[in-house]
Amino acid sequence: MGTRLSDSEQYAHLWGTPELAKVFEERARLQSWLDIVTALAVAQARLGIIPDEAAVQIASHARAHELDLDFLASETRRTSHSMLGLINALQQLLPDVAREHVYVGATVQDVTDTWFALVMRDVGTVVWRDLCAIEDRLLALAVEHRDTLMVGRTHGQAGSPITFGFKAASWADEVRRHLQRLSEGRPRWLVGQLGGAVGTLGFFAPRGAELRAEFCTELGLADPGISWLTSRDRIAEFGALLAMICGTLARIGNEVYELQRPEIGELREPTTKDTVGSITMPHKRNPEGSEHLDTVARLVRANAQVLTEGMVAGHERDGRTWKAEWVALPEACLLTGVALEMALRLLSGLVVDAAAMRSNLDRYGDQLASEQMLAGLTRRLGRNAAQRLMHELLAPGSRDVHDVFDALLAEGAATEQDRQAWTTWMVGDAGRMVDEVVARARAARTTEPDPWN
Amino acid sequence: MGTRLSDSEQYAHLWGTPELAKVFEERARLQSWLDIVTALAVAQARLGIIPDEAAVQIASHARAHELDLDFLASETRRTSHSMLGLINALQQLLPDVAREHVYVGATVQDVTDTWFALVMRDVGTVVWRDLCAIEDRLLALAVEHRDTLMVGRTHGQAGSPITFGFKAASWADEVRRHLQRLSEGRPRWLVGQLGGAVGTLGFFAPRGAELRAEFCTELGLADPGISWLTSRDRIAEFGALLAMICGTLARIGNEVYELQRPEIGELREPTTKDTVGSITMPHKRNPEGSEHLDTVARLVRANAQVLTEGMVAGHERDGRTWKAEWVALPEACLLTGVALEMALRLLSGLVVDAAAMRSNLDRYGDQLASEQMLAGLTRRLGRNAAQRLMHELLAPGSRDVHDVFDALLAEGAATEQDRQAWTTWMVGDAGRMVDEVVARARAARTTEPDPWN
Amino acid sequence: MGTRLSDSEQYAHLWGTPELAKVFEERARLQSWLDIVTALAVAQARLGIIPDEAAVQIASHARAHELDLDFLASETRRTSHSMLGLINALQQLLPDVAREHVYVGATVQDVTDTWFALVMRDVGTVVWRDLCAIEDRLLALAVEHRDTLMVGRTHGQAGSPITFGFKAASWADEVRRHLQRLSEGRPRWLVGQLGGAVGTLGFFAPRGAELRAEFCTELGLADPGISWLTSRDRIAEFGALLAMICGTLARIGNEVYELQRPEIGELREPTTKDTVGSITMPHKRNPEGSEHLDTVARLVRANAQVLTEGMVAGHERDGRTWKAEWVALPEACLLTGVALEMALRLLSGLVVDAAAMRSNLDRYGDQLASEQMLAGLTRRLGRNAAQRLMHELLAPGSRDVHDVFDALLAEGAATEQDRQAWTTWMVGDAGRMVDEVVARARAARTTEPDPWN
Amino acid sequence: MGTRLSDSEQYAHLWGTPELAKVFEERARLQSWLDIVTALAVAQARLGIIPDEAAVQIASHARAHELDLDFLASETRRTSHSMLGLINALQQLLPDVAREHVYVGATVQDVTDTWFALVMRDVGTVVWRDLCAIEDRLLALAVEHRDTLMVGRTHGQAGSPITFGFKAASWADEVRRHLQRLSEGRPRWLVGQLGGAVGTLGFFAPRGAELRAEFCTELGLADPGISWLTSRDRIAEFGALLAMICGTLARIGNEVYELQRPEIGELREPTTKDTVGSITMPHKRNPEGSEHLDTVARLVRANAQVLTEGMVAGHERDGRTWKAEWVALPEACLLTGVALEMALRLLSGLVVDAAAMRSNLDRYGDQLASEQMLAGLTRRLGRNAAQRLMHELLAPGSRDVHDVFDALLAEGAATEQDRQAWTTWMVGDAGRMVDEVVARARAARTTEPDPWN
Repeated sequence: MGTRLSDSEQYAHLWGTPELAKVFEERARLQSWLDIVTALAVAQARLGIIPDEAAVQIASHARAHELDLDFLASETRRTSHSMLGLINALQQLLPDVAREHVYVGATVQDVTDTWFALVMRDVGTVVWRDLCAIEDRLLALAVEHRDTLMVGRTHGQAGSPITFGFKAASWADEVRRHLQRLSEGRPRWLVGQLGGAVGTLGFFAPRGAELRAEFCTELGLADPGISWLTSRDRIAEFGALLAMICGTLARIGNEVYELQRPEIGELREPTTKDTVGSITMPHKRNPEGSEHLDTVARLVRANAQVLTEGMVAGHERDGRTWKAEWVALPEACLLTGVALEMALRLLSGLVVDAAAMRSNLDRYGDQLASEQMLAGLTRRLGRNAAQRLMHELLAPGSRDVHDVFDALLAEGAATEQDRQAWTTWMVGDAGRMVDEVVARARAARTTEPDPWN
Repeated sequence: MGTRLSDSEQYAHLWGTPELAKVFEERARLQSWLDIVTALAVAQARLGIIPDEAAVQIASHARAHELDLDFLASETRRTSHSMLGLINALQQLLPDVAREHVYVGATVQDVTDTWFALVMRDVGTVVWRDLCAIEDRLLALAVEHRDTLMVGRTHGQAGSPITFGFKAASWADEVRRHLQRLSEGRPRWLVGQLGGAVGTLGFFAPRGAELRAEFCTELGLADPGISWLTSRDRIAEFGALLAMICGTLARIGNEVYELQRPEIGELREPTTKDTVGSITMPHKRNPEGSEHLDTVARLVRANAQVLTEGMVAGHERDGRTWKAEWVALPEACLLTGVALEMALRLLSGLVVDAAAMRSNLDRYGDQLASEQMLAGLTRRLGRNAAQRLMHELLAPGSRDVHDVFDALLAEGAATEQDRQAWTTWMVGDAGRMVDEVVARARAARTTEPDPWN
Repeated sequence: MGTRLSDSEQYAHLWGTPELAKVFEERARLQSWLDIVTALAVAQARLGIIPDEAAVQIASHARAHELDLDFLASETRRTSHSMLGLINALQQLLPDVAREHVYVGATVQDVTDTWFALVMRDVGTVVWRDLCAIEDRLLALAVEHRDTLMVGRTHGQAGSPITFGFKAASWADEVRRHLQRLSEGRPRWLVGQLGGAVGTLGFFAPRGAELRAEFCTELGLADPGISWLTSRDRIAEFGALLAMICGTLARIGNEVYELQRPEIGELREPTTKDTVGSITMPHKRNPEGSEHLDTVARLVRANAQVLTEGMVAGHERDGRTWKAEWVALPEACLLTGVALEMALRLLSGLVVDAAAMRSNLDRYGDQLASEQMLAGLTRRLGRNAAQRLMHELLAPGSRDVHDVFDALLAEGAATEQDRQAWTTWMVGDAGRMVDEVVARARAARTTEPDPWN
Repeated sequence: MGTRLSDSEQYAHLWGTPELAKVFEERARLQSWLDIVTALAVAQARLGIIPDEAAVQIASHARAHELDLDFLASETRRTSHSMLGLINALQQLLPDVAREHVYVGATVQDVTDTWFALVMRDVGTVVWRDLCAIEDRLLALAVEHRDTLMVGRTHGQAGSPITFGFKAASWADEVRRHLQRLSEGRPRWLVGQLGGAVGTLGFFAPRGAELRAEFCTELGLADPGISWLTSRDRIAEFGALLAMICGTLARIGNEVYELQRPEIGELREPTTKDTVGSITMPHKRNPEGSEHLDTVARLVRANAQVLTEGMVAGHERDGRTWKAEWVALPEACLLTGVALEMALRLLSGLVVDAAAMRSNLDRYGDQLASEQMLAGLTRRLGRNAAQRLMHELLAPGSRDVHDVFDALLAEGAATEQDRQAWTTWMVGDAGRMVDEVVARARAARTTEPDPWN
């Protein structure tokens, strides 16, 4: 039984997904490691470094669910070696003919860095898929609410109107850029590692490079060209991207949190009849999913920072960096996975209350058309006089102006003919921007291959 | 089976200790939560809020190992409420008479924040104890090696001599300040939380404050005076201190790492005959414990940062902050625990190679006495002329000077009578500083009560 | 002309205060450094290390405003030595008799670390004073609004009522703990540094410790007992405290930002008639001061993190750490200074709209008394039945319940006699908690000396 | 005179470059802002929004060096508006005909975000150029030292041999990936911002999008398609990349720092005859440039973190984020600039002491060939027996083995015929990896256009 609340039976669902648990759960991870050990054996057999039969046996016996985990753990502790426990436990499963031929010439990072590449492939695939689904949902919201008027808010204050579609399009646009980044980074990340003791592949001389190529091919990874034992930019980049993706999701979550305030009431995250917001205050409906997106983003950011710090690695191998990555990379992946899942659920069931949006707009009288009036006055009086007049009319404490246009009329600065143009809600090019974002996304979808499948 | 490598059977020993696992492991945590729920019931019975019999029954049935964890987890997911799963599972264990009277008027943070106080007490006790043991060990090293000469190094370059005791005393002095901080912070941290819905204890009016006092007393915690649901400085402070403590341990670890380089060879971390440094390079003895102290410090720092960020909490309750703390505080505690354990093991078995230290000093001829020669020349020629002369003699490329004093003789700047005073290794007041640190620590130990026991 | 926007004529007022500029501005900093060089000379003269006359001359000529800054800068670049430029420029100001006797046996950190202690004294004094003023203001708000009812908010949703005084008291309580921390840390921080080449004071043997004591006394600092060239916990601790203080101020700022939303309108930060919120939207009144507290807190947190990272310093001197501190510590100080100034201004002019608070409470009908009704029902029906009933009544979508009590009446769960007790706004012990916080603060003020003056 | 040491006359050269100062220095920044204001006017004139003559006058009078900076600053403070001070100061320079027509309908972020795009272009150009130069230098080192044998080090311990060219190629490979990232990110970053009050361009309806297109074209930037006022991923991504680049440079710097230790002595950073390493220890040659790369990387990382945190921005404009960016983005840029400059200087003058490298290899006898012996023994005895034998021979304390091969001979596990193959230094495919990195870089150089010029 674990010590991390993030892995507890009670709360694990908040800090990871079952799908990613299948990547990171201990037996699953060990199976991946065994797959890598197997790929090495297969490649070595192909080059005649070990007997074919050994590779065949390794391939058929390297099953994580058959490992004696207690033995594996105690051997790990006894030897203080990160991989020897696994190798010794594997050897217990192997027939004599193969026992000698596992993990020949390899080192810990050959397994764990290659695993990182597989992790980035698996997690990247999930992230890509979920981001695509989120983009779809955001585009649908943008299209549906292309013309749904609502208050624009700057510095938390009501400003000129926007549309909810415009807001959703801004989110979608950000998501699209993450998809681009995922495509661009992919070939950098999905490379195997086989370096041996110090990265030169000396153990396998003179066929090291050839072996590495076979090994990578076997796993569907690209060949790195040169060992990257202390060249950790790939990991840092992947982590930084996860942190940015979670930043976008937290931005969405916080927006829902704010707009779900009862005083605003424009958005509501979905709930179920069983959800209990508060025991002591039974009327409460808390935006806990939205909140959680911010929580997760903080944690991913912190872990990503550790990965960037890890780039300053020493010499040909540096345990300080690599072991911090062991914790921080999976953590960032699991958390991002759950953030994506929750964001998708949030957006799929998001309640958009167009009536409340409209009523909030109306609450401020024609004040929120002040930008339009200013534009009209500017054309008539010039920028400076127009600004002066508006600022006088709207000075704090001057009055509680809800009828700004009437005040302009009274000042003789406007005529009744201006009323409609100056006070009808106008959202400028919000709609065109929505169209542009939608068109770009759809174009990208049509032309881009899905790089992750 | 968990998804965090830090909780895996294979590697858990690197990311926590069995002792702290007893604090954070799921059943143990749930038992603490039940103890808090029990304390609440006991306090409520004392004030007549619930029947005495209910409290008695709760106290005798609230056993974590009897909870149906599957039910607890599924109820947690079904209700999306952080505490209801536990309460419902607890009610299954209770006789009718008590079932109605658990968790009356309380909210999640009343349990989890109070748990945080208990965690800070338990972890603080371990940290205090281990830091004391580390201080003892460092003071012993300082005393034993008060006069063990070695190269002082600045910017990674050999400089004037120091003693190893001086280095150890500098570590001990830093540890002592952490002990002070632990003492000072303790009364701030060890306070209960009982606020109810929004912190006012409205549910229990007009006896809320009284109830809280009873509740805190029951748990051996102080009364906070006012709810601290969104006042998170205590948690942030505790986390920041853990990060600083790990910083000190990483400083020690990195020093060992560097001085264990074979080219230097002055320190060696302990090893066992079973330890396997490298499979592919059997001659290797890696300072993996030392390294790990740096790894852990990075992760604790990142988690502590999340806690400080969490101080910016909103309104009367803010899930964004508190749920990030749920992950980050235990993580920081578990990691600090293992860092302390490893540091203590490292220091207990640390091999100090005084001969290597001496031989490294000698390697640079009398160059490392350049500060003394400069001091002597300064007295004789004045500061500027002395500096000029030394800089000329030692200019890069001028020569590979190992016999600086002979060069000064040749220049007529020194006489043979100066040789001993100018070239004997002198370590100034290093010894007196060791004595001072030792005296201060011992004085503190004698006068200070152990606040954590 | 500088490159940092934080030092620009246009925006410097947002990123520092004139008062702290007097600490950090280049000539002021150089004067502090010269004062330290002078204190060293005075102490050295007292011990006969340099002639009295030299010390007298240094004391009377070490004037930063007379330094040739161009020469100083070019010498700094030419020698790549951090202090030599200043020393050479100082020597230009000195008569022959003194020129030889400046900075004898000292090293860069002897000056800059001692300066850090002076900085912590100067900045600590400002922080202490401003935090006291902020506490005064918060206590006054707490007392004035002890019984000013308002909506309590959890997860951004309206909950049971609180009072504004309760909220202010929670802020004040947090500030008080910072004052405690400032008192406790002070004796740790205000220590001089004099270590010479490697910290042993070898240059001054056998009178190094004596010299350091004189030197520290001369500057009003305590003697550290042992050199702390790579023992950076003091700096890290001070930085961490500044980050926490800014966290508290950001918490206050964000609360004002949220409660100033026009849809809520309970608080307003002060403004002046000249303030222009928005040119294009003249009606806007932006909570820019409140916002800025959050901005500053982020930056201070980032800089504080650098300081904690710096604790992992190598050997007897480590430029990687110390030079990062040169940037990060002053930055954290200047930013904290402006945050305190802005927070004080914000709180001094804060508009508390009690009517709006009341009207927001009323907006939700008797829903916000749900905790009280639940308490009443619990006494009558037992906890579980009470909860079930309330949750049914208030289930999402069940109705837009503003008359919860009437619904209870209709269900037969309440009687008309319950109405007053169950629906009158009750804030539990909020008032007593305010009194407690005020009493504690006043007691502390009376008994504690002002450690910083 | 500024308050930031990073902008001081004494030390500015450590925290920025003259070239980037020309981007960020106050008048330069203001000129950029005026250029943006001018571009807006030009675009507006083209669309008939303002008179042509006004745009002509603005274009010819918007000169930062003629602005009354005192007035600008005092107006900024008086109005508490970030841009009004500049606009008012600009109006002083304009003839009547133009005064009304500056900054029409624009908002602060239209100027400052567009400036950020220009900054990313200017800084990106410098970074691209310097990274190319650094890559050139690294490739040259890799080629020159393709076969220069040296000790490979893992966990700080001597391991199997590598070549210095292999190490340099690993650096070069990392740099190449940064060049890729710079190319890929460029089209995302170099987009203008024109959103008006809330991003909809309502002021300019119905020609907002058209105006934005003109405006962007005028500045040589791409059109963003949709406003990005609170969509800050571009800034975060750029910052994260700078942090990663500095991470690579710090990795190089730390490597030099370590290998310049006198006990190792394989690398030395360049120095000049005027450089003073230490006044008190005249023999010292400190790797201060190398050190500084690590210092800078820490600060850039901290600032980049602020930028990622800023992605969680609220509503249609959020001052908390954008003002933190104002400090953090320029800081990250300036620091990266100086890191690149110093890294280039370091690498250009790097002293590679091949003889010392060789002699360090020899110091460990044939121990460092243990991987080869293991490989040989593995072929002969099988993996397990081979490992067992080697581990027995090399067990800690077993002996100080410098003649491992002789021991194998004595054990009968090797024959004299094996000696050459088993003990000659072998570096596996190090050379081929160098060739691969060089070939890839050269291919990229030939085919890729320079996107930044």
